[in-house]
Amino acid sequence: MSTEPQAPASEPVEPTPTSAGGDTPAGPSKNELKKRAKEEEKKKKEAEKLARQAELAKAKAAAEVDFAEQNYGKLPLNQSQERLGRTRVAISTLNASSEGQTVLLRARVHTSRAQGNKMVFFNLRQRTDSIQALLSVTPEKVSKQMVKWAAGIADETIVSIEGVVQKPLEEIKSASVGDAEILISKIYIIAGVESRLTFTIDDAGRPESAFESTDAQYNRVALETRLNNRVLDLRTQTNQAIFKLQSGVVNLFRNYLNEHGFTNIHSPKLQGAATESGASVFKVSYFKGTAFLAQSPQLAKQMAIAADFERVYEIGPVFRAEDSNTHRHMTEFIGLDLEMTIEEHYHEVMELLDSLFLNIFKGLRQQYSKEIEVVGKQFPASEFKWREGPEGTLKLTFAEAVDLLVADGVDRETLDDIDTTNEKRLGALVKAKWDTDYFIIDKFPLALRPFYTMPDPNDPTLSNSYDFFMRGEEILSGAQRIHDPTLLAKQMISKGVDPESMKGYLDAFRLGCSPHGGGGIGLERVLMLFLKLNNIRRASLFPRDPKRLEP
Amino acid sequence: MSTEPQAPASEPVEPTPTSAGGDTPAGPSKNELKKRAKEEEKKKKEAEKLARQAELAKAKAAAEVDFAEQNYGKLPLNQSQERLGRTRVAISTLNASSEGQTVLLRARVHTSRAQGNKMVFFNLRQRTDSIQALLSVTPEKVSKQMVKWAAGIADETIVSIEGVVQKPLEEIKSASVGDAEILISKIYIIAGVESRLTFTIDDAGRPESAFESTDAQYNRVALETRLNNRVLDLRTQTNQAIFKLQSGVVNLFRNYLNEHGFTNIHSPKLQGAATESGASVFKVSYFKGTAFLAQSPQLAKQMAIAADFERVYEIGPVFRAEDSNTHRHMTEFIGLDLEMTIEEHYHEVMELLDSLFLNIFKGLRQQYSKEIEVVGKQFPASEFKWREGPEGTLKLTFAEAVDLLVADGVDRETLDDIDTTNEKRLGALVKAKWDTDYFIIDKFPLALRPFYTMPDPNDPTLSNSYDFFMRGEEILSGAQRIHDPTLLAKQMISKGVDPESMKGYLDAFRLGCSPHGGGGIGLERVLMLFLKLNNIRRASLFPRDPKRLEP
Repeated sequence: MSTEPQAPASEPVEPTPTSAGGDTPAGPSKNELKKRAKEEEKKKKEAEKLARQAELAKAKAAAEVDFAEQNYGKLPLNQSQERLGRTRVAISTLNASSEGQTVLLRARVHTSRAQGNKMVFFNLRQRTDSIQALLSVTPEKVSKQMVKWAAGIADETIVSIEGVVQKPLEEIKSASVGDAEILISKIYIIAGVESRLTFTIDDAGRPESAFESTDAQYNRVALETRLNNRVLDLRTQTNQAIFKLQSGVVNLFRNYLNEHGFTNIHSPKLQGAATESGASVFKVSYFKGTAFLAQSPQLAKQMAIAADFERVYEIGPVFRAEDSNTHRHMTEFIGLDLEMTIEEHYHEVMELLDSLFLNIFKGLRQQYSKEIEVVGKQFPASEFKWREGPEGTLKLTFAEAVDLLVADGVDRETLDDIDTTNEKRLGALVKAKWDTDYFIIDKFPLALRPFYTMPDPNDPTLSNSYDFFMRGEEILSGAQRIHDPTLLAKQMISKGVDPESMKGYLDAFRLGCSPHGGGGIGLERVLMLFLKLNNIRRASLFPRDPKRLEP
Repeated sequence: MSTEPQAPASEPVEPTPTSAGGDTPAGPSKNELKKRAKEEEKKKKEAEKLARQAELAKAKAAAEVDFAEQNYGKLPLNQSQERLGRTRVAISTLNASSEGQTVLLRARVHTSRAQGNKMVFFNLRQRTDSIQALLSVTPEKVSKQMVKWAAGIADETIVSIEGVVQKPLEEIKSASVGDAEILISKIYIIAGVESRLTFTIDDAGRPESAFESTDAQYNRVALETRLNNRVLDLRTQTNQAIFKLQSGVVNLFRNYLNEHGFTNIHSPKLQGAATESGASVFKVSYFKGTAFLAQSPQLAKQMAIAADFERVYEIGPVFRAEDSNTHRHMTEFIGLDLEMTIEEHYHEVMELLDSLFLNIFKGLRQQYSKEIEVVGKQFPASEFKWREGPEGTLKLTFAEAVDLLVADGVDRETLDDIDTTNEKRLGALVKAKWDTDYFIIDKFPLALRPFYTMPDPNDPTLSNSYDFFMRGEEILSGAQRIHDPTLLAKQMISKGVDPESMKGYLDAFRLGCSPHGGGGIGLERVLMLFLKLNNIRRASLFPRDPKRLEP
């Protein structure tokens, strides 16, 4: 803010001279006319003088040849006109030891700031990396015209720059590279910005805490606004890191399973019949008939087991036509599914799933610590905790979980199932007692599970099924499945499913199928909870919910 | 076939005695009644005698205690009753050096053959591996009852067996393990077969040539029959190998791209608008509105580039509502898609895709030689050939490809586009001339490509686009894309697409987007052509076409 004294607001205004005074009819006197003619003549001469001066300045400017005109400007549209094979550098590779190197790179103008008319500072960005670059008037190299042009480059423009790496006078805190900057010698626009930015990348990347103080001077960017402008939103360092982490979870999932004898399968999402009870399915016009979108690869992966695949996994979209508008539901998400035969006991699957998760957690922490740190700046979270070593992952039975809640004051009568609120409460109780954000609940009541769930051998009201939890939210549901066609048909009927409607599935078991079990993981939930993003939409590239199909 | 003489078909049939003759009213005489009473008495006595004999036999059998009754039988349904942690072996690990080992394993009865009533030979199968096992009456170990029971086990039953590995008298040609067999001491049924097998696994696994001789004694299994009984069909060694190879292609694709700085993305299949021209899309009921199934991740992956992801890939289902009933079209298939920024020229992408393919071919040959060999037994194919070394992959321009066809006698007038027949012909010409099954055609006419294709910088009728071919069929289509929103909108209009209908997509480029290109690969086509399966349905787990939504 300027500290110069302002002129008082009440300063008297001089009255406009509309007439010469008196009551005589309006009309100038002869003297008055002469006076005016003289004034006009004077004005004309002044205008002529100004025009002459302007022409002179123009001529002078023309004479002042822009020696740098080859060093800047907008490049023609890249249609692959030529291929010089020049090497571009990644900002992440630059540091103080790069001093003196001449580099060429493509980057976005994150922000820029002119200092007088002789210098422009840029913050150049490549994904999660940024570096300071400056352009300064230099005899025979950088002209005033070049600096003026460069000062006009809009934020988010993609530029190609060439320059020399130098050590900055002091550490640069606004860029990810703190100990190096680039002195620009050439700067060209590769792609400009042709629309107004709904928000700045800086505003979109600020932590919630930045808006919490009463004198907050930043614009808070609502989630809805972000999702409507998702391409812009995705450019924040946070989002770049989130989706590197998403890719990381998938890689860790795959690698672990590949190493453990699993085959990656791809089952059709278009189904001839609406299958599985419970969740509703989307209807598709299929030529002259109707198809349905698979609500999970459950049936297909079990059929793969009946077809002797032994161990299978699938990574693919899962569709749920449920009108749930919550922080953790989407109509389309990525399912990480697996199914495997068991030799003796379904805990073989449960333990493999547990090892898989521990492997993912460890892998993320080891390979993606930089990304986790970046996300943590915008979404502060307590470090995700799990138990390791000989005691291993905490495993509770459903009954034990209920007891914990009852001991904490929850009415046992309400605990036929553990609802979302009680799940959270249980998560907090477990965290307080065992200091872990990750645990398993085993032995769910049979009534709560789908028809294909294997009943417990000793208590017919229980089942061989489990859920896995992260920060008090379910992220995996799994079980031993029924591999016997007679029992399967019986359970279908008891859950109101017509066995005839699922003949292809049932037939698979009539051909002989090994005992097996598996589970389904919601990719976005794992990511949301590991990073504590608080809304599942933040973990999805272009999220879909009952109210959103765009962009 | 039995060689016993059959009774002549014309053997006279004895007339049924309906009446004693004459015209007197029906009714037995006294003599007749006496005779009948006598006969009944006789029958009664005989029946009593038989019953006594049966009882004696029963008592005798009961006396003959089955000393082996603990060693066989149907196991109770596995509901995870107990967990002993016993180690099961994989058939693939057994060989002559395992001699003397006592092993426990779960396998399918591929076939079995009783020899007299004292011995049964089994061919036991685990996916692509099989071993001979025999059960033989042995004092105090294997009873006659046990052998009799075991001889009745149906093919495809899942059994658990225990036994000792021994060297066979001669090499076993009918099993994948030739130098070892198992002498069974215990055999239990884990899961039985409760339906008739539409075909045997052996018949389903025979090469076409087996049916070609005029005295073929096997049942040919039609593709339609296989697909209707896909779970059974998938158990053949060939299919087990095909889907290990499919998993392998995906792994090789991913690993290569992960090593080259790509991020794995997952874009929504549910779209708010029917997008891209050309291929038709499936319509989905979406709550009170309508959605469409993505016909490719094209728009999303380009938007990810506009969002600075730099290099992305996606592996996911692609939906095409085209009523094409050919050997190479499905309504749902797996797209292997990638998109990346380019620095100077779209050949950067084309060359990366080429390296990717070479990497996949080499990886398959190195890591999956056994599976390729297995598939080759049923689907004989000339070895897939590609060019390596300094000359590299053959690259033709569209114009050069046309010239080759014209020189071979095709009318130039018909070559505005190269249709499927001419593609095949071109593939044969290329193979004859350059001895390669894999090549690239570059520089397609702009008119043949989608609106988002970048025009050639020098000839406005051409484009910066390419197709990749395997054995004369297209398996990849790709191009440099238009990253300038003004040119993109213009091209949309010229192809009859309303830019307003794709606002979210167009807006992404208005926010500034780097020059980029990419391509889309059909996973099943690559697999079909590499292995020469001749029908794409064989490369899909549960294929979908206009006439098939099940199983």
